Amino acid sequence: MGKPFVVGIDIGGQSTKLGVVDARGNIMVQTSFDTKDIVELRVYMDELVKTLNKLIGDPSVGGKEKVKGIGIGAPNGNYYKGTIECAPNLKWAKDEYGKPSVVYLKTMVEGAMGIPAVVTNDANAAAQGEMIYGAAKGMKNFIEITLGTGVGSGIIIDGKVVYGHDGFAGELGHTTSVRRTGRHCNCGKIGCLETYASAIGVARTAREMLEFNSQRPSLLRNIPADDITSKDVAEAAAKGDALAIDVFSFTGRLLGEAFADFVAFSAPEAIILFGGLAQAGELIFNPTVEAMEANLLQIWKGKVKIIHSELPGSEAAILGSAALAWEL
Amino acid sequence: MGKPFVVGIDIGGQSTKLGVVDARGNIMVQTSFDTKDIVELRVYMDELVKTLNKLIGDPSVGGKEKVKGIGIGAPNGNYYKGTIECAPNLKWAKDEYGKPSVVYLKTMVEGAMGIPAVVTNDANAAAQGEMIYGAAKGMKNFIEITLGTGVGSGIIIDGKVVYGHDGFAGELGHTTSVRRTGRHCNCGKIGCLETYASAIGVARTAREMLEFNSQRPSLLRNIPADDITSKDVAEAAAKGDALAIDVFSFTGRLLGEAFADFVAFSAPEAIILFGGLAQAGELIFNPTVEAMEANLLQIWKGKVKIIHSELPGSEAAILGSAALAWEL
Repeated sequence: MGKPFVVGIDIGGQSTKLGVVDARGNIMVQTSFDTKDIVELRVYMDELVKTLNKLIGDPSVGGKEKVKGIGIGAPNGNYYKGTIECAPNLKWAKDEYGKPSVVYLKTMVEGAMGIPAVVTNDANAAAQGEMIYGAAKGMKNFIEITLGTGVGSGIIIDGKVVYGHDGFAGELGHTTSVRRTGRHCNCGKIGCLETYASAIGVARTAREMLEFNSQRPSLLRNIPADDITSKDVAEAAAKGDALAIDVFSFTGRLLGEAFADFVAFSAPEAIILFGGLAQAGELIFNPTVEAMEANLLQIWKGKVKIIHSELPGSEAAILGSAALAWEL
Repeated sequence: MGKPFVVGIDIGGQSTKLGVVDARGNIMVQTSFDTKDIVELRVYMDELVKTLNKLIGDPSVGGKEKVKGIGIGAPNGNYYKGTIECAPNLKWAKDEYGKPSVVYLKTMVEGAMGIPAVVTNDANAAAQGEMIYGAAKGMKNFIEITLGTGVGSGIIIDGKVVYGHDGFAGELGHTTSVRRTGRHCNCGKIGCLETYASAIGVARTAREMLEFNSQRPSLLRNIPADDITSKDVAEAAAKGDALAIDVFSFTGRLLGEAFADFVAFSAPEAIILFGGLAQAGELIFNPTVEAMEANLLQIWKGKVKIIHSELPGSEAAILGSAALAWEL
């Protein structure tokens, strides 16, 4: 008979989402709990274990005998060590001095639940989910790019997530787009792709364009500069606002230039865009494809697809994390 | 008993080198033939097969019953298809109109010899050789960078060469170092790493520095500018010539910056430098390490080794190609 279900857990700065998933990607039952007020690891773990027990005890699941494994996607999650390491956005993942520290999540979850668990970062989880349930079904070589508050990536080679020597491979948001003169990144480097192609980067580009071209009309001038979000830029662009369209052209150009370098590395069949910014559709896809094609070696021109994630938005994170657990 | 030997073939623009190798990397017998005057595929194949038969018939080998397989490293070699595709430097690999064309090398060699064969590009062969016979023994995740006339790369993940979706993965010499304002590359792109970190790139940097700083003294001024080679620059630098040392500092900086991005991709244990330019030792290693470290994410600082190839120079190409054949 085998065990028909896996659990997917998505740990974010604001909340933790959990779901029980079958082999076809149907979510049998799901829930979430708020984490923004939790500042102690012990409190977080108590809440996590309580919620997991309730979820797995649901009649549609039937207890832990039916659960093959638990997959966990978390910022700075490390696959080899089963840890979360130095994740500044998780307030409960800190040591007694308030500094981000190493959390042995896999060991703790396995100990409390008696079910095998696996931990990785959220973008790797999304890539694994894409391969099993999404747009990458049947693909063995692709790159998942998550365009959210930051820019993350999960790299699949020969049907497997690339973890590298230390479990941290796939930080493509921190490859350099603009050397020396680029924007400062939260990571401490200069000109990282993330500073341009993230939601925050797009909003900043809009603010800078408005300021550099102070005479140019734009719907975005109706919004106080500091309040402009990437969603505002997308809405203005959708209404034909030329400046907002230029913001996406610029963003897409840097994204496409970076993609050409990624292709030179692993020669993927496709690059799959996931997350809020990917919702902007042609506005971001067209300039990205154009810039990538202009920068590809001849052997790859016209051959690498840039496509939209097919993981359902609200449940993608649970499905991605769940997908990891099938390998246990 | 099994078959104790493999054949390694290294196909270059000037010559083809062949050797029979045992499992420990001892070359039992080797030879080479000149190819620069060969312009027809038929002529090349006749010569290759004749030389192979002679080599395998040598008493130290004992005939083709003792040979497990033939590994071939060639410019633009494709592992999946067993072809050489569009290799402009191989005059015999052209179609009837004189244009570079697709050569079905694996099929032809297997047909003529009755021994399984495998084809890949020279840098992938070097990486495989490094893992079996060289500095990467015991490593499962590393990147081999070949610094020759051009810049090539072989990427090892989980103990295997990365070929990607189409067999052409690992063209890191054609990732972009200097966007928009960079040097034109033979591949048609702008600012490729290869235009700076190759032997040709180093000579060009020297010529440009001599011209930009026309008052600055340098031993290199004793050589007509057009004749300066990367070897001249290395020799001048070894004698303490400040301008020549600056050429390597600049080259190393671009190399190290590129390496930091490669690390963000596959999180390798080491990056291994192979080829003529790597002979410059500290002159190139020191600025490369410094620039890489300055551009790495915190999690990787001080953790990624940059080391020198341990494949013996003159036989490296044969050993690398031979290493491929053990997997057959």
